[in-house]
Amino acid sequence: MERIYIQEVVTRDGFQMEDQFVPTERKIALIDRLSHAGVDKVEVTSFVSPKAVPNLRDAEEVMAGIERKPGVTYTALIPNVKGAERAAVCQADEVNLVVSVSETHNLKNVRRTVDESFSNFYDVADVLSGTGIQMNGTLATTFGCPFEGRMDENRVMGLINQYLALGAESITLADTTGMATPKQVYQLCEKVLDHWPGLPVTLHFHNTRGMGLANVMEGIRAGVTRFDASLGGLGGCPFAPGATGNICTEDLVHMLAFMGYDVNVNLDQLIEISKGLGKTLNHELPGQIIKAGKITDLHSTSYS
Amino acid sequence: MERIYIQEVVTRDGFQMEDQFVPTERKIALIDRLSHAGVDKVEVTSFVSPKAVPNLRDAEEVMAGIERKPGVTYTALIPNVKGAERAAVCQADEVNLVVSVSETHNLKNVRRTVDESFSNFYDVADVLSGTGIQMNGTLATTFGCPFEGRMDENRVMGLINQYLALGAESITLADTTGMATPKQVYQLCEKVLDHWPGLPVTLHFHNTRGMGLANVMEGIRAGVTRFDASLGGLGGCPFAPGATGNICTEDLVHMLAFMGYDVNVNLDQLIEISKGLGKTLNHELPGQIIKAGKITDLHSTSYS
Repeated sequence: MERIYIQEVVTRDGFQMEDQFVPTERKIALIDRLSHAGVDKVEVTSFVSPKAVPNLRDAEEVMAGIERKPGVTYTALIPNVKGAERAAVCQADEVNLVVSVSETHNLKNVRRTVDESFSNFYDVADVLSGTGIQMNGTLATTFGCPFEGRMDENRVMGLINQYLALGAESITLADTTGMATPKQVYQLCEKVLDHWPGLPVTLHFHNTRGMGLANVMEGIRAGVTRFDASLGGLGGCPFAPGATGNICTEDLVHMLAFMGYDVNVNLDQLIEISKGLGKTLNHELPGQIIKAGKITDLHSTSYS
Repeated sequence: MERIYIQEVVTRDGFQMEDQFVPTERKIALIDRLSHAGVDKVEVTSFVSPKAVPNLRDAEEVMAGIERKPGVTYTALIPNVKGAERAAVCQADEVNLVVSVSETHNLKNVRRTVDESFSNFYDVADVLSGTGIQMNGTLATTFGCPFEGRMDENRVMGLINQYLALGAESITLADTTGMATPKQVYQLCEKVLDHWPGLPVTLHFHNTRGMGLANVMEGIRAGVTRFDASLGGLGGCPFAPGATGNICTEDLVHMLAFMGYDVNVNLDQLIEISKGLGKTLNHELPGQIIKAGKITDLHSTSYS
């Protein structure tokens, strides 16, 4: 069976939404445990303004403190040239650029038009030129925007093209607010991979409307092999209070592993790390496997 | 796009697990609202011993009180001849027989071997003969048993055969404790429909391990068009405290409707009924759409 790559985003996408600041040494310990459990990539942090995202104000310390396990890609989100410079100092393996497919969402999120974002990314590319740091281009709201609704597929194709033109090596199609349907995922991914065969495409899903793992299955059917997920399903969306966040890493790995996909992550370790995260945060996590156990965790028949 | 049939089980599978008795008139009002919202079938209640399931002790009153909307099938779970006689008096459209694929689970659930269950079902068939009441045969733990693990596909095929031999018109493959993976669902459903083309097969999924809607998609891909679901995702499993229960009706309808499937249910009405159910029960329901809204519920851009 196919190799599927698991990319952990909990310390970035999960922690940025938390009510509490997770202490730096806890973040570092968590990332090191995830590396050893076998995830393929970790989105360590964001090099954004500490005022904008106070929970990630320790980006430099976290990057400096983590162990760099060979074979694991350590990436960081950056919004601009300043972020690129910080990521370069920290020797991130990759930076993750983000622009929304939706003009309205991009304006709200980064106070720039989509064109202004790309113009800025050319400066980022200049800063990173020669550093060996790779660029991943994320398209937020690829499958729908909470303000504008469904996005046009050809607009998405055009924006992928713009990312590739400025030197991005890989693309993430992000369903930022959990609006993708399985059919839509299959159709778009098939179109993208038909046009750019071999392009490393990541799908980044939120389980906001319960379709997260169904969307993963359709992504795989269309040929995608890289998925972002957040330990315990941590994360969320300001537009859907009480709804679940990112798809849950251990639920994703559980599903894939029991279907026979080649996943590098050790599921038991992942479940233990997720349970530990729940204790650290002192609140329940949306993930299901930490509550229900694996399908192979059988009960004794004396248990009535 | 294909017609998909939505079969509501909240007043049976949902309510039987609740800590509280839902008043009879509330059950009746809920079923009537669901009928008018357009569900294709309602599993109204169980004709079991009131001692075994006190929450459903009002089975006769509920059956007598509900409106019978033409086109909707009103079914009731029955465990034995006594249940069949009660269902006949109440003129249920259909009875739902249940046996587990797993011997251990069947012994725990109904204190009979699988053979004893089928022997009993022949007496049930005699009681119902000539009444016009249809029989649906449910196979519990089809995809896995919390005691025995994964079930053998050929054993499932044999048990379907036994149901058909005694006169069951339709079959439900139930994933009683949420152990099915999408791949397993596709493989088994393809095998069943290859062997019995045109057999009305229902899939009954629990979302215990987050795979519920992914399993629905694979069932549809294999040709299944009938799905059980529970309003608000109410339900659960004694082996997975804190985990989610049955797949959620409005989340299911939301996913299917926005992919263009022909679903008879009015999604907006369903969401309103589910919100009302949460108020009646006075606790949060696991469903996502009641929290996140539909993908077409857009936000105003003045909302920051």
